[in-house]
Amino acid sequence: MNRIYVDNAATTPVRKEVVDKMLPYYTEFYGNPSAVYAEGQQTKKALDEARETIAGILNCQPKEIFFTGSGTEADNWAIIGAAYANKAKGNHIITSAIEHHAVLHACDYLEKRGFEVTKLPVDEYGIVNPEDLKNALKDNTVLITIMTANNEIGTIQPIKELCAIAKEKGILFHTDAVQATGHIKLDIKDLNVDMLSISGHKFNAPKGVGVLYIKTGTRVHNYMHGGGQERNRRAGTENVAGVIGMAEALRLADIELEEKNKYLTNLRDYFIDTVSKKIPYCRLNGHRTNRLPGNINFSFQYIEGESLLLMLDIKGISASSGSACTSGALDPSHVLLAIGLPHEIAHGSLRISIDSQNTKEEMDYIIDSLVTIVQRLRDMSPLYEEVLKGDK
Amino acid sequence: MNRIYVDNAATTPVRKEVVDKMLPYYTEFYGNPSAVYAEGQQTKKALDEARETIAGILNCQPKEIFFTGSGTEADNWAIIGAAYANKAKGNHIITSAIEHHAVLHACDYLEKRGFEVTKLPVDEYGIVNPEDLKNALKDNTVLITIMTANNEIGTIQPIKELCAIAKEKGILFHTDAVQATGHIKLDIKDLNVDMLSISGHKFNAPKGVGVLYIKTGTRVHNYMHGGGQERNRRAGTENVAGVIGMAEALRLADIELEEKNKYLTNLRDYFIDTVSKKIPYCRLNGHRTNRLPGNINFSFQYIEGESLLLMLDIKGISASSGSACTSGALDPSHVLLAIGLPHEIAHGSLRISIDSQNTKEEMDYIIDSLVTIVQRLRDMSPLYEEVLKGDK
Repeated sequence: MNRIYVDNAATTPVRKEVVDKMLPYYTEFYGNPSAVYAEGQQTKKALDEARETIAGILNCQPKEIFFTGSGTEADNWAIIGAAYANKAKGNHIITSAIEHHAVLHACDYLEKRGFEVTKLPVDEYGIVNPEDLKNALKDNTVLITIMTANNEIGTIQPIKELCAIAKEKGILFHTDAVQATGHIKLDIKDLNVDMLSISGHKFNAPKGVGVLYIKTGTRVHNYMHGGGQERNRRAGTENVAGVIGMAEALRLADIELEEKNKYLTNLRDYFIDTVSKKIPYCRLNGHRTNRLPGNINFSFQYIEGESLLLMLDIKGISASSGSACTSGALDPSHVLLAIGLPHEIAHGSLRISIDSQNTKEEMDYIIDSLVTIVQRLRDMSPLYEEVLKGDK
Repeated sequence: MNRIYVDNAATTPVRKEVVDKMLPYYTEFYGNPSAVYAEGQQTKKALDEARETIAGILNCQPKEIFFTGSGTEADNWAIIGAAYANKAKGNHIITSAIEHHAVLHACDYLEKRGFEVTKLPVDEYGIVNPEDLKNALKDNTVLITIMTANNEIGTIQPIKELCAIAKEKGILFHTDAVQATGHIKLDIKDLNVDMLSISGHKFNAPKGVGVLYIKTGTRVHNYMHGGGQERNRRAGTENVAGVIGMAEALRLADIELEEKNKYLTNLRDYFIDTVSKKIPYCRLNGHRTNRLPGNINFSFQYIEGESLLLMLDIKGISASSGSACTSGALDPSHVLLAIGLPHEIAHGSLRISIDSQNTKEEMDYIIDSLVTIVQRLRDMSPLYEEVLKGDK
């Protein structure tokens, strides 16, 4: 049996069609897009077309799309660049407790340099309460950064509503849409955000390429200093093949979005319902319905997530205990702690992130494996023994 | 006839062998290297092997190699990161007048934030005089950044000697080796630099991937904040395929270096000698021999470089007037001004950067085209008419 890959929130395989689109830009159309001669203009045209494709899907202007080397770069640029560019107005930044580290650590960086950061709490499902945002606003608030959808528990935030609160006060709003883009419909004009971050490899484009959307007129300092690429806003020769792959991947994802999400939601709900029935002492993390179609996150009491992952790996299943970026770390997920899980339960968590290549047969295999493994791990747990005794 | 590409200093085609090495990492081995399961560990192993290959060729430790999204990011990280990390010791930075904009603009950024920057002059060939560096040192100097080889005129700096001056005073030394890597032999241990920047697409690897070498123990702040990638030093999912391509491209370049450089030096010298003989009122920019094997840079009096480029383009020749990053800009090259060229002569400059795919037949075709085009452009110049009258 082939291995089962259910860690699509960590990264995705690049689609065959995407690779095919990229290939000519390595060996044939390799000109530097900043050059005046034919090869350069050819590449520049392809970059511009990619920009138009992405802008069209996200409903913004092509000139508002800036290519970066990653989602992390987009987040760092947006947050650090906007904070410094608007420092004269104030030094207060608002974010949420469950952001990706690319956002939280950028905020930490600023906090060490004289900025004040408020991390909004979330409810038990991971949702930011708009009232909390209103109450956190201060006269010196210059930036709010709240993610569109969470990478661990899949919770989707009410970005439009949160952003409206910011706009009422004339405060910049950034959203890390790395997990959402290509997976749920995003309309930038409707959301009305000032900045939005994307990462290609989360939707079947290659690693090493991202986007920062910057609304025209937004004050944000450059983050990469050098050549005049990206209208003098982001220096460094563009990752041409990567950008072209990203545009193609987003185009395909957008076409297939509705149908795929129906499929994934069914698969997800089947998984959640079956596990909830078959495995005692488990808890679904995140909201039951207001979550990414491909996200499943469970905590199993009385077991260690790390052991669970390793045993799933032996069974040929690739899953995650949370964010890939913190795997190997011994600290429990800040997201799970923020939704109120005690340390010991947060430790026993599992993220299954599915995509269109996954099947119901695979879900059944994972569920069966889970039942066996969870039982086996619990049998080894003295704590679980106590529980069983207590139950008698 | 096929087009002739002689702008290899701007960017290079990706080698077929390199693309072949990269391909499996898009669709087959796509695991996130931070993940614990088989697919992740597989990718991590491949990343580590790439790191070892690069470290072996450059003569440093694998743990001193940090992957970035571009040469620009590597330069920005080194300069801004080291400046802030060593701010307590002083705020003076020394660079040269002919650095790439990724270095100069990073210095400008710091200058606006309380740092003091000295830009060392260069001689008529573009060489930094070690005595000038000695004289520029101050008690508060914390960083020196001087490029290994210049991107416009190909001049190779005496990095080992310059670095020794820094080391004597315990000052950090960074070199932008973007143009040098894969083109001339670099031995980091011998150079003794603390930081060194590389860009893949300058040596037949793809665009969008680079390296910052950081000597163990060097104090430099992180530039990308987020996940724990690259031993907690550079956040963001690694561009796995790009890194693997870069290592393979560098491996191949290193194997072929000596033979290729003999070939290129011959071709370059043939071009320089022939043009010098055939076209009056021209000037070779940069040093006659102490230059990159593939670099040719001429100024032709009484003509505009932009028109020259366009007419070469029509003849099927892709060349450059200097750095691709500033093409389209009306300002004459800061490099050519720094070596003492008056504005009007700097404007009439042409960079031909050759690589192993270029042939003697191509050189002859370019030279013949140049002779015709330069003559035609001069025939249109009232200034040149004056000169001819004066000559009579």
